[in-house]
Amino acid sequence: MVKLDKKAVDLLKGKNFAFVATINRDGSPQVTPVWVDTDGSKILVNSALGRVKVKNLLRDSRVALAVSDASNPYFFLSFDGKVVKTYTGKKADDHIDFLSFKYTGNKKYQGRKPTEKRILFVIEPTHVRTW
Amino acid sequence: MVKLDKKAVDLLKGKNFAFVATINRDGSPQVTPVWVDTDGSKILVNSALGRVKVKNLLRDSRVALAVSDASNPYFFLSFDGKVVKTYTGKKADDHIDFLSFKYTGNKKYQGRKPTEKRILFVIEPTHVRTW
Repeated sequence: MVKLDKKAVDLLKGKNFAFVATINRDGSPQVTPVWVDTDGSKILVNSALGRVKVKNLLRDSRVALAVSDASNPYFFLSFDGKVVKTYTGKKADDHIDFLSFKYTGNKKYQGRKPTEKRILFVIEPTHVRTW
Repeated sequence: MVKLDKKAVDLLKGKNFAFVATINRDGSPQVTPVWVDTDGSKILVNSALGRVKVKNLLRDSRVALAVSDASNPYFFLSFDGKVVKTYTGKKADDHIDFLSFKYTGNKKYQGRKPTEKRILFVIEPTHVRTW
């Protein structure tokens, strides 16, 4: 585990997208953008059960994220990490509402399908690179 | 191979960054942003020999890219693909200058180190997803 410095924390707390890479069952890579946040030491990502990246992360906890500054796309950090904890239920639901507020101003996440079950991934960073 | 529709071509021809995911030697994922372009059917990415993603792609040609629209980060496409050709030398050098012009207005790529050898990856898309 590595410590996130102020620059990393600020970037993760900002309204910036993270591009999350995971490993498919056949070993090929997958990458999608997600909302992101941090508790100061771990990286927090929220998704829905059934999605490819969720299946991938539940099978292989290794993950890479690249986050670029929305106000300066030439400043970005990349993180290697691993999922050390997951939450479903109220904790994941509250967290997606929190992210919704951060990114859109809506206190309730608007993109949710009726049957959707959210999952919160807690990711321990193992390596951080500046570019 | 899948055909790139107009939306995909426009996105790849625009001044948008691609987040490229590759597979490290140990099977873990790697992701970094790059300049990107297309010839209309293939995806074109340019990097320098020695970089992690280059080593990765020369070992395992499977690649995933996510490209979001700089003017609307909620519109993006993700591509699965494989490297079908690489070029070094003049063709790769001309291509990085072309990308430099597209992204920065400089006809000569400014970021180059004296000993750097460029490599152009030609990527055949095998799957495209809209989000």
